Amino acid sequence: MSQVKEFNSYREKMNERILAQDNKVLKRFFSLDNQAYQEGALDVKTKELLGLIASMVLRCDDCIKYHLGTSHEIGVTKEEVYEVFSIANLVGGSICIPHTRRAVEYWEELESLSE
Amino acid sequence: MSQVKEFNSYREKMNERILAQDNKVLKRFFSLDNQAYQEGALDVKTKELLGLIASMVLRCDDCIKYHLGTSHEIGVTKEEVYEVFSIANLVGGSICIPHTRRAVEYWEELESLSE
Amino acid sequence: MSQVKEFNSYREKMNERILAQDNKVLKRFFSLDNQAYQEGALDVKTKELLGLIASMVLRCDDCIKYHLGTSHEIGVTKEEVYEVFSIANLVGGSICIPHTRRAVEYWEELESLSE
Amino acid sequence: MSQVKEFNSYREKMNERILAQDNKVLKRFFSLDNQAYQEGALDVKTKELLGLIASMVLRCDDCIKYHLGTSHEIGVTKEEVYEVFSIANLVGGSICIPHTRRAVEYWEELESLSE
Amino acid sequence: MSQVKEFNSYREKMNERILAQDNKVLKRFFSLDNQAYQEGALDVKTKELLGLIASMVLRCDDCIKYHLGTSHEIGVTKEEVYEVFSIANLVGGSICIPHTRRAVEYWEELESLSE
Amino acid sequence: MSQVKEFNSYREKMNERILAQDNKVLKRFFSLDNQAYQEGALDVKTKELLGLIASMVLRCDDCIKYHLGTSHEIGVTKEEVYEVFSIANLVGGSICIPHTRRAVEYWEELESLSE
Repeated sequence: MSQVKEFNSYREKMNERILAQDNKVLKRFFSLDNQAYQEGALDVKTKELLGLIASMVLRCDDCIKYHLGTSHEIGVTKEEVYEVFSIANLVGGSICIPHTRRAVEYWEELESLSE
Repeated sequence: MSQVKEFNSYREKMNERILAQDNKVLKRFFSLDNQAYQEGALDVKTKELLGLIASMVLRCDDCIKYHLGTSHEIGVTKEEVYEVFSIANLVGGSICIPHTRRAVEYWEELESLSE
Repeated sequence: MSQVKEFNSYREKMNERILAQDNKVLKRFFSLDNQAYQEGALDVKTKELLGLIASMVLRCDDCIKYHLGTSHEIGVTKEEVYEVFSIANLVGGSICIPHTRRAVEYWEELESLSE
Repeated sequence: MSQVKEFNSYREKMNERILAQDNKVLKRFFSLDNQAYQEGALDVKTKELLGLIASMVLRCDDCIKYHLGTSHEIGVTKEEVYEVFSIANLVGGSICIPHTRRAVEYWEELESLSE
Repeated sequence: MSQVKEFNSYREKMNERILAQDNKVLKRFFSLDNQAYQEGALDVKTKELLGLIASMVLRCDDCIKYHLGTSHEIGVTKEEVYEVFSIANLVGGSICIPHTRRAVEYWEELESLSE
Repeated sequence: MSQVKEFNSYREKMNERILAQDNKVLKRFFSLDNQAYQEGALDVKTKELLGLIASMVLRCDDCIKYHLGTSHEIGVTKEEVYEVFSIANLVGGSICIPHTRRAVEYWEELESLSE
């Protein structure tokens, strides 16, 4: 199975299980997490890139994959994604390089799936 | 092999190898790490939950698994574990969500193994 | 002015300013942050200690002060607080020591104010 | 002295001293750090906001101040800055709140200085 | 395939792809990352160990593997590597233990490959 | 009062208070923290530099000050310290720059006190 499908299906399955447990704080937190990226003073694209760089400097591979997926969907280009990676590496240091490698691999799969 | 068994056997095997190397600082550190969770002014259950949330906000999957295992053994309930997860996500942010997914999967395996 | 008063008054003043700006995501996040520590499957004391250790391993002095303040109010003892500190230092390492120093100083001021 | 002036003058003074020491790696790193925020596939404003959120989730007050200063100069609005803060708090958690308080105070000083 | 070969070949393949994309900031950052470990006031061995401990306390498994590989090549001994691990665990805490386990396993593979 | 004296006297005073509280885990942790830097397979100087870079990439100003103090005492040179800073900035990213500024200021005070 492709990385993209595997990531999305695991994410979906486990989110469902988490939300099935009636913990109100977690449920509201998940819902707030969606709201934060909606169009506002800043547009959706800028917000996705903000989510992407935050995920990268905090070195959360799954969060990076999620934001790469949504960035790709809304038409962010490879050049733009690489500029996000470059700032992330400068700010977060060379410990971001392994995450950049995996991010590039995931991005390329996103591109090949949409060809 | 189940995740639980795989985690425990790898942990045990590698801890043995580490302790076989005669590095006194590491040996004392490992021993101190056990002491810290023993009954004191706070009871064992509270200390396990402290270890669990610390592991979650620091995003250490193996540490989470370890504390989920011991929490399960001493009778912590699913509702309690979810409340730890909810505080962890609030304090540590949405980058804890992927760790929560894996923690929930591991917890459910612990529950199914003990049925 | 005492550290305790200074911390509380700055916190209150700035929280008001943040909430005065009509950003719904931040407002809901602040409100959720309060909810997370309310009585549930776990009692308020356990939750405060969870908040305290999470703050300490993530090395957020202001968050530590806040949870020390509420812990003190609800009757957590010095011995209990020190056990939280000891687990925090084990899990988070010696980089937590400077935060422990400042936490001890703050705790002692909380105790002297309540005499 | 205002916070803004104090921050800028200390930053400038110490950067000069660092660059006066002939360490080529540090010099090139400082120079690269400037390059990363220049106009490219992404515009300067987006890049500043990327720098701002990365600084906030990594909880670097001085880095936040620097990017607030440049963001203010190029015309970023208060509403936009708050949306960056809100995503930062969601992704990075409530440990970002104390940094948000200080960021709001600094931003308001930037605004009052430019009136 | 051995862990060592797998790590090196993935690292090489992805670095090539990253550098093939003409992002100057990333390219210069990668080149600077090499320069930083070259002989200077401190010798190459000390610098490798600095890179190793920094990678360990920041908990970057791939970075640890890379520095273990170069450390092994230049003749660092097992006793020395364990002393780096012990300081890393003290400074960075018990969340470094799982990374130490994987590091020990990788080091032993490096040793067995060179026999 | 000089920064160096202020740091040392606060550190000493608070360490005494922490150790006065009879928490065995904390006491043993403090003692282990001293042991870790003693001569072994690696010499004292290398270990101090390992402690310094670990403190810098984890961005703990007080820990940096402590290791700068001991490094200065045992004759580490300015060129060597700067090489540690340069690797720390590469590995840990530009968020280490503000800590480098404060480290340079502290180092220069250490040098001026010993003239």
